[in-house]
Amino acid sequence: MTPSPTQPAYPPVSERFARPDWPNNAWYAAAWDVEVKHALLPRMIAGRRIVLFRRTDGVPAALNDACWHRLLPLSQGRLDGDAVVCGYHGLRYDSHGRCVHMPSQDTINPAARVPALPVVERHRFVWVWPGDPALADPALVPDLHWNHDPAWAADGRTIPVACNYKLVLDNLMDLTHETFVHGSTIGQAAVAEAPFTTTHGPNMVQVARWMIGIEPPPFWGNQLQRQLGRPVGLVDRWQIIRFEAPCTITIDVGVAVTGTGAPEGDRSQGVNGFVLNTITPETETTCLYHWAFARNYRLTEQSLTTELREGVAGIFREDEIILEAQQKAIDANSGKTFYNINIDAGAVWARQLIDRLVDREQPSKVAAE
Amino acid sequence: MTPSPTQPAYPPVSERFARPDWPNNAWYAAAWDVEVKHALLPRMIAGRRIVLFRRTDGVPAALNDACWHRLLPLSQGRLDGDAVVCGYHGLRYDSHGRCVHMPSQDTINPAARVPALPVVERHRFVWVWPGDPALADPALVPDLHWNHDPAWAADGRTIPVACNYKLVLDNLMDLTHETFVHGSTIGQAAVAEAPFTTTHGPNMVQVARWMIGIEPPPFWGNQLQRQLGRPVGLVDRWQIIRFEAPCTITIDVGVAVTGTGAPEGDRSQGVNGFVLNTITPETETTCLYHWAFARNYRLTEQSLTTELREGVAGIFREDEIILEAQQKAIDANSGKTFYNINIDAGAVWARQLIDRLVDREQPSKVAAE
Amino acid sequence: MTPSPTQPAYPPVSERFARPDWPNNAWYAAAWDVEVKHALLPRMIAGRRIVLFRRTDGVPAALNDACWHRLLPLSQGRLDGDAVVCGYHGLRYDSHGRCVHMPSQDTINPAARVPALPVVERHRFVWVWPGDPALADPALVPDLHWNHDPAWAADGRTIPVACNYKLVLDNLMDLTHETFVHGSTIGQAAVAEAPFTTTHGPNMVQVARWMIGIEPPPFWGNQLQRQLGRPVGLVDRWQIIRFEAPCTITIDVGVAVTGTGAPEGDRSQGVNGFVLNTITPETETTCLYHWAFARNYRLTEQSLTTELREGVAGIFREDEIILEAQQKAIDANSGKTFYNINIDAGAVWARQLIDRLVDREQPSKVAAE
Repeated sequence: MTPSPTQPAYPPVSERFARPDWPNNAWYAAAWDVEVKHALLPRMIAGRRIVLFRRTDGVPAALNDACWHRLLPLSQGRLDGDAVVCGYHGLRYDSHGRCVHMPSQDTINPAARVPALPVVERHRFVWVWPGDPALADPALVPDLHWNHDPAWAADGRTIPVACNYKLVLDNLMDLTHETFVHGSTIGQAAVAEAPFTTTHGPNMVQVARWMIGIEPPPFWGNQLQRQLGRPVGLVDRWQIIRFEAPCTITIDVGVAVTGTGAPEGDRSQGVNGFVLNTITPETETTCLYHWAFARNYRLTEQSLTTELREGVAGIFREDEIILEAQQKAIDANSGKTFYNINIDAGAVWARQLIDRLVDREQPSKVAAE
Repeated sequence: MTPSPTQPAYPPVSERFARPDWPNNAWYAAAWDVEVKHALLPRMIAGRRIVLFRRTDGVPAALNDACWHRLLPLSQGRLDGDAVVCGYHGLRYDSHGRCVHMPSQDTINPAARVPALPVVERHRFVWVWPGDPALADPALVPDLHWNHDPAWAADGRTIPVACNYKLVLDNLMDLTHETFVHGSTIGQAAVAEAPFTTTHGPNMVQVARWMIGIEPPPFWGNQLQRQLGRPVGLVDRWQIIRFEAPCTITIDVGVAVTGTGAPEGDRSQGVNGFVLNTITPETETTCLYHWAFARNYRLTEQSLTTELREGVAGIFREDEIILEAQQKAIDANSGKTFYNINIDAGAVWARQLIDRLVDREQPSKVAAE
Repeated sequence: MTPSPTQPAYPPVSERFARPDWPNNAWYAAAWDVEVKHALLPRMIAGRRIVLFRRTDGVPAALNDACWHRLLPLSQGRLDGDAVVCGYHGLRYDSHGRCVHMPSQDTINPAARVPALPVVERHRFVWVWPGDPALADPALVPDLHWNHDPAWAADGRTIPVACNYKLVLDNLMDLTHETFVHGSTIGQAAVAEAPFTTTHGPNMVQVARWMIGIEPPPFWGNQLQRQLGRPVGLVDRWQIIRFEAPCTITIDVGVAVTGTGAPEGDRSQGVNGFVLNTITPETETTCLYHWAFARNYRLTEQSLTTELREGVAGIFREDEIILEAQQKAIDANSGKTFYNINIDAGAVWARQLIDRLVDREQPSKVAAE
């Protein structure tokens, strides 16, 4: 069931923000693994200020970034072995947040602690769980295996974007915008014109577009020609977008010489990439957009890895401009409704899955009526 | 009836802002005519973000600057012929705001449109009407004909000022401040000392000051001497300020050799200018101050036009400093009252005419009591 | 009675700010004496914008910094003899705030005045009293006589700090933080380990720490060695902090060769300084931190005065970073409680004395219940 293009699918912006904007019981990518060293790294994750660090045994840890005593950010202190030492009065906390030293006194109140967050290191990211620690099952970390799978070569970055994380999800769930935002690289009229199919499950939404027998856009034409070692004519192009609630999207993208069976599953005469995206809300109007681009060809060519990373980074800077302008427009037009058109089917489903996760965390309202 | 100088004439600042700060049913100067090209120009006019552009037939148009679909400012898109194309998903709007193309679908919801504003081009400005389009009578555009009348040479500028537009009106309705703010150019003790008369009609207020047999201030002494080609002694100086609600003020200014009949109407031994001002509210604390200076002598001397424009611009920069400081002081002293003294008679009448226009647009409150 | 270290001693931050944050009936240092010249100096003191100036007879005066007429800051006008002339319409006020001239009119409303504040010049500061002028007894100016006593050489500065003034008081009432914040100069483990005694009276709190037979910290070791002219071994170090409500703290500090009787009162084999601090609230989140360092040795050595002033300034910059980070953390964690530990005893008492002064100024609430 695709939402009607003629009716507003959402309540006004102001009402939507009345409910929490994200679920707390979820794994959020807080940083790339290499960013977390034996040092104090402050981050804002899902509305919480946290401090990340790697213990001497290499295990990452995350604590609330405010001293129990006087609220000074612990990230302004220092790490002494596995203890975090506050930079004001020297209170020491172990990696679980328990205070183990106070100045000028021998006894320590056992209630003196800062909350610790469950942490998992996976797929080259450090993930934290801001919600109930008892529910923090590592099996729930989103699948971004392409980012470390030896069959793929991947690299990426993190962009702090001054917009609500759902605007990035909207952006990725419909690639029509490539035609208008990324016209000089990956965009082409065919994307906006091609039909697409939307499917969904309890925790995922998929939007798939196949463009058969088209001129390849500059970026992909170049990749395919270099891979095949010869000029290429028409291609089949695919974009298979897969959302996993609340904030991870993988996009299976590529082109193959038309008529060589790509739609049926034979991609041997093509080039294939995965755009990996996981967008961590910081606040209601800012997010950390972690992305990587993975390819399954010419794996050892480091210069290609760099070229692709920089190429995608350039494309995403075009999105960043649009997304931040859109957030400002939302702020300036509070109360105005988002209208949906056909292309928004995937984004609408994605937002409904997020809303469902959020609602599940709210106290029951049955008794209230 | 001049307001009493010993009683606060207004409710506190905070209460005054409770009612709308300007009428919507009025023509507001949005830009100089030459600023509006075949390109997208964003402006904030009377609290509304709009996008201005000139169609291929040269006619100016104005739309709300937010795409119906996802609110992205249309001004971040592009103009294609007479169509505005959104920079995100490519929705196209005609110059009346009707959506004429959506990506990936053939049918277009007839409700998909962005509001268009009535536009008139007159007196070298492009005027928009933010209120009810049915009431947008071009005959109501304020009279600034000096700005294009061949009997006058005029030039000017627009200053974005970080203050409420009424503070600029206050400033212009009483020129006593010239003595203190513009002492080095047009100010002189005589201005603050001279008597003045205030008259008013249903939509206008006039404040007239004649200073008879005074030393000319540097600016005017210089103009008159160059015009007559000889040194001048004492002069008669006039300032006839005419306010037209809600935000246009023309000031008939000049000096003539004293005793040559200027007060009786013979200005042949004098120099005469008109300061044209129309102040467009952007928000409650910012405005666009459009001004021009027109003269009726040495019309073809372009260097004089430039000299006068730059001279007035320098004088208005002195006002800008005062006006922005005053707005900050109002913000910092919320609840504090403006007290009026004799010199404020014109400004008080002007504000009353504005309040009347605003009240006329409010739903009736008769039933409420 | 020391507050319990295991219980929050205060209501949450948000509730504490519901009551006024400082008493109005108090002398606040507005500026150093040399800063107040025959010129208009704007300051924000205890939530009030004031303008300070020195009359032609040398006596300092303070008025509200907003013209009675249109609120323009008087500090943007000019001083003409002893009269303050508004920079917009030329209203003139005498040094008591009475309007003595209005433009274009002969009679002046006797109600036309701006409030004047009681002013006292003492201890090289200009003090103002924002509260009831009838209560402004100069005998209540805090004792900072070391700042001009010929037996002492003193110099200092004013730091505008973006934090609530009480955070500076907290900082000074417990010097444990020297160990962690000022480790390279005056901090040492001994400070955080040494026992301390807290005493208090109706308007003062004292926290005294003696560290017997310790290695001198770099700063003090250097001072003592230069004073005695020979290498020094172990020392006795003292820190006697004296708070005078609402915002003045003097700290008697120094070291003496251990075993020479300093704890018993003989400081002849030592060096002694007084850190003078008076912290004037500007707003709830900013303050003016006035400080000076006074010594009673080598009084005429100007290079030492400069060296000490610069040394202390460097130390206080370390505090400034912590204090502003703490204020940001409070803003970001509204509703979170400050927990107290043993070292906070002095600060807790100081805040209670402030609260008592503030409560005394509130209208009685007895009848309300």
